[in-house]
Amino acid sequence: MADINSKLEIGVTTGPIRGSRKIHVGPLGVAMREIALESSSGEPPVRVYDTSGPYTDPDATIDIAQGLPARRGEWIRARGDVEEYDGRHVKPEDNGLKGPDRSAGVPPFPNTVARPLRAKPGMNVSQMHYARRGIITPEMEYVAVRENLGREMLKEYVRDGHDFGAEIPDYVTPEFVRDEVARGRAIIPSNINHPESEPMAIGRNFLVKINANIGNSAVASDVASEVDKLVWSIRHGADTVMDLSTGRNIHDTREWILRNSPVPIGTVPIYQALEKVGGIAEELTWEVFRDTLIEQAEQGVDYFTIHAGVRLPYIPLAAKRVTGIVSRGGSIMAKWCLAHHKESFLYEHFDEITEICKAYDIAYSLGDGLRPGSIADANDEAQFAELYTLGELTKRAWSQDVQVMIEGPGHVPMHKIKANMDKQLEACGEAPFYTLGPLVTDIAPGYDHITSGIGAAMIGWFGTAMLCYVTPKEHLGLPDRDDVKVGVVTYKLAAHAADLAKGHPAAKVRDDALSRARFEFRWRDQFNLSLDPDTAEQYHDQTLPAEGAKTAHFCSMCGPKFCSMKISQEVREFAAKQNQPVEGFVANEAEAEAGMAKMSEKYKEAGDLYIPAAE
Amino acid sequence: MADINSKLEIGVTTGPIRGSRKIHVGPLGVAMREIALESSSGEPPVRVYDTSGPYTDPDATIDIAQGLPARRGEWIRARGDVEEYDGRHVKPEDNGLKGPDRSAGVPPFPNTVARPLRAKPGMNVSQMHYARRGIITPEMEYVAVRENLGREMLKEYVRDGHDFGAEIPDYVTPEFVRDEVARGRAIIPSNINHPESEPMAIGRNFLVKINANIGNSAVASDVASEVDKLVWSIRHGADTVMDLSTGRNIHDTREWILRNSPVPIGTVPIYQALEKVGGIAEELTWEVFRDTLIEQAEQGVDYFTIHAGVRLPYIPLAAKRVTGIVSRGGSIMAKWCLAHHKESFLYEHFDEITEICKAYDIAYSLGDGLRPGSIADANDEAQFAELYTLGELTKRAWSQDVQVMIEGPGHVPMHKIKANMDKQLEACGEAPFYTLGPLVTDIAPGYDHITSGIGAAMIGWFGTAMLCYVTPKEHLGLPDRDDVKVGVVTYKLAAHAADLAKGHPAAKVRDDALSRARFEFRWRDQFNLSLDPDTAEQYHDQTLPAEGAKTAHFCSMCGPKFCSMKISQEVREFAAKQNQPVEGFVANEAEAEAGMAKMSEKYKEAGDLYIPAAE
Repeated sequence: MADINSKLEIGVTTGPIRGSRKIHVGPLGVAMREIALESSSGEPPVRVYDTSGPYTDPDATIDIAQGLPARRGEWIRARGDVEEYDGRHVKPEDNGLKGPDRSAGVPPFPNTVARPLRAKPGMNVSQMHYARRGIITPEMEYVAVRENLGREMLKEYVRDGHDFGAEIPDYVTPEFVRDEVARGRAIIPSNINHPESEPMAIGRNFLVKINANIGNSAVASDVASEVDKLVWSIRHGADTVMDLSTGRNIHDTREWILRNSPVPIGTVPIYQALEKVGGIAEELTWEVFRDTLIEQAEQGVDYFTIHAGVRLPYIPLAAKRVTGIVSRGGSIMAKWCLAHHKESFLYEHFDEITEICKAYDIAYSLGDGLRPGSIADANDEAQFAELYTLGELTKRAWSQDVQVMIEGPGHVPMHKIKANMDKQLEACGEAPFYTLGPLVTDIAPGYDHITSGIGAAMIGWFGTAMLCYVTPKEHLGLPDRDDVKVGVVTYKLAAHAADLAKGHPAAKVRDDALSRARFEFRWRDQFNLSLDPDTAEQYHDQTLPAEGAKTAHFCSMCGPKFCSMKISQEVREFAAKQNQPVEGFVANEAEAEAGMAKMSEKYKEAGDLYIPAAE
Repeated sequence: MADINSKLEIGVTTGPIRGSRKIHVGPLGVAMREIALESSSGEPPVRVYDTSGPYTDPDATIDIAQGLPARRGEWIRARGDVEEYDGRHVKPEDNGLKGPDRSAGVPPFPNTVARPLRAKPGMNVSQMHYARRGIITPEMEYVAVRENLGREMLKEYVRDGHDFGAEIPDYVTPEFVRDEVARGRAIIPSNINHPESEPMAIGRNFLVKINANIGNSAVASDVASEVDKLVWSIRHGADTVMDLSTGRNIHDTREWILRNSPVPIGTVPIYQALEKVGGIAEELTWEVFRDTLIEQAEQGVDYFTIHAGVRLPYIPLAAKRVTGIVSRGGSIMAKWCLAHHKESFLYEHFDEITEICKAYDIAYSLGDGLRPGSIADANDEAQFAELYTLGELTKRAWSQDVQVMIEGPGHVPMHKIKANMDKQLEACGEAPFYTLGPLVTDIAPGYDHITSGIGAAMIGWFGTAMLCYVTPKEHLGLPDRDDVKVGVVTYKLAAHAADLAKGHPAAKVRDDALSRARFEFRWRDQFNLSLDPDTAEQYHDQTLPAEGAKTAHFCSMCGPKFCSMKISQEVREFAAKQNQPVEGFVANEAEAEAGMAKMSEKYKEAGDLYIPAAE
């Protein structure tokens, strides 16, 4: 790992993830990581899902000012349904009312595409549209290979899980991907103006995904640190990233992020629209909002959070709550609705928004503006009223073949989590659910990556397709680089725990490989197979820093004399030496007892089979 | 908070927990914490459970070399069933084969009681014995007050939870405590030689408890840091502490810990017994083990982990596993059994161990020596064979009126957790379950406080009475002070999430108070009500360090212009000003629409009700 600085002083972390090798699989060169194990293990390398893009590929040249290669460009153009056109001109207010703030020395992205793409008149370029016409796109093929990982090596795998009605296949075919997208159970967010992205799927029958939020605010952050956070978060496993910037430089920040992002980028366009009207919600108009959508569509945003379910009649329901409306988008729309005493313009103009989405293939992330912000408000009338409206909007979007996912809570005690999933499946026709946690208690600010990780693992198991991370700073401040890493790793483990519990065929292979390494004291394999090899090794070394300790057959918890793993190995080796079928011990206890004295002698003869490693 | 050093250079953290006041409730002076809220809130103080003992009481004088006051002493003697006797003499091997290591300058505890207590011949001094004879002890009365907290203030509380058949009362009476102890559904660990302890209950119908493990090992740690960890862990909420020392100074370390502990102390006596025979499991004998039990009983250990369920016939079942036997106690016994090819001496002598327990009131913690150490091994034959044996032993202990809890796993994927609880309830007659996590995936070493916190919250909800913490160093090294804190806080939040989901009447009051504080921008109240006020404030201050920011009506996430909480308050205030019943908006949408223009005018007149705080 090395921190390199580009000419523009935007530094990002590059270099291989320790212990991993980047591989490219199949004719499409689907990027994965492969973790080689010690030769003593006799085990094949373990393939893991890789979100890190070219940044971890030693063969790639990274130039932040240039952006990533536009790999999908030729696929998009080959379909013959897009056209270049003169894009919208950047206005000062796109970067905040007073225009961009150059005080941090960060210029606009130098290689912006002058002429963006959009669908030709009358065309629809969404993956859902192709899927419904029976077309398997390269994006779908890429997803199929990517999701399979080493699944073909797992033919003997016996499904062990409880999937609550999900339909996870043993093997993912491109046709399966197409079918899931066609019926709306999965989305492949892939704006035609973001050709740098590596296709990925969000859906209940695929691996559970995670999202990391980044973005500056009026109070803190700058462009360079946001690009750094993007690269840092995908290095640790973020499947998508949302840019939630609300301060100055919104347009420029997003451009730097998109051009350097191999993962889909989501936004909440109302944030930028609000900045354009000076932060006064009442002054928002459909025209300003629509212009913002076009602006972001041309830049390549892959999914839009749209809070179109915050309808005027629901707002008073939220006034009774302990914590009212905690969604920023939701509260902006609530204020607008009350001020004008009119139905939300997002709801009123929903089909027009859908028209824009289908011209660029932007997926909806239908926002839960009325999500509960506290345990007290969980599963209330306001929340579910909105959810059923989101279901109605899903069907309207689908009628135009536009991809949809649904955002979910929030703060929910454990016993109320399952109802959220059940109602979402029912209301929204199995459109992918995308939840923020949920946090299972309110009393642990500073630890809300954990309070929410608990809820996230559970709702992921129940069927949620993507989990939006929460960092330790939630409710308290803006996450820094360390917080982003902790948030991402916490959510990776929650998502993986969900895959395991669902019985996903590609999940358990990694647990088993790591556990075998642990049992056999292959410390390096254990570190390399873990979600955060650096931290694992660092913690180990705090008590046993000597290099030899990494090959030692003990650890600091018990010390050399007293290791249960070691004793357990002796037990196994002893049993093997006796060539005694293990069931034999139990099958006939009386007989076993008769042989006790003899067995005891044999064990003592065999002696201590363990040869201590040099300390 | 201040770090004071005793004369013996054993430093511990003392002083009140920030924002909290120590209170003593009722004639028994039951210790609790009270968190006062800002007067602007108009809310009463919030009472919370307090495990920190005199260390957080500004009126207490702390002298580590003296130990804590023996508060329970007079209760114990007043029952007239105990006698003093000449205790066992400390032998060199009690502190490791070569005797104590004084190189760190730590002497033996200077104020050891010369003549310990035990039951008079023929007497049984266990809380269960009293309970079964209909006697309500002061320990039971203390527990009743302690568990109630502010429950009498919650008369209007509507039970909201799913308790899987638990029978949590609205109000805890001493008679309820007695009954739960009598039927074995709860234990009050309270060795008569540990009169410094503040009585607490472990049971499915009480608040979920947590345990912190401390202890030195042959590789690292010393006495001073273990006493510090004890005080540090109870400061953050550990309900019991296990001393798992395995190196030198075992006897002395335990004496320092016990004399300074207001919470029950548990041990795994086989660890010390093994040290006494030079670490060679085969050389263990019943006599050495029995002598160790007496040694620890006289010192005041409140509960013993006894791996009596690791029976000879089960051992081969574990040989087939991916990670074999991961319990240290379990592997020691397995090795002994195989070497001698004999049934475990713990199993054979179980009733004699019970005789010792009833003479001192030591509770059993029946160890799960065959718990799974990996996802692959969860819920296997070895694990459940042992569990049913633990059920058999429970009934044998109960036949002598000795208190019992049952230890549980380990590593278990989410979909297999519930079965663990169900089988434990069935096999062990509702004896309290005490689990280590479980960890829901193997792939996140360095984050196993989180992988296990997920499983702990779930199994706590299902009915587990006490959760044994796991620190970030699990599988990698020995926890330091920071790890202990992170482990304890993680488990406190998991236990609280479980209480919430069970619908425990004393749980939600704290979430609601904190959420109201959050909504009203009472930052100090939010910090003080949280599980870790110092970390919460520190995280807040990292982005907004100015003192004024703690009274500001915004935070760094959105900045002053853009706060959803703020907008939400405006919505509520506006609704209130209109004197419009909130249901009215929804009841008649058509009518509401007619009034829109008028309402809109009113809102604009009312203007921005928000008065910005000075930045």
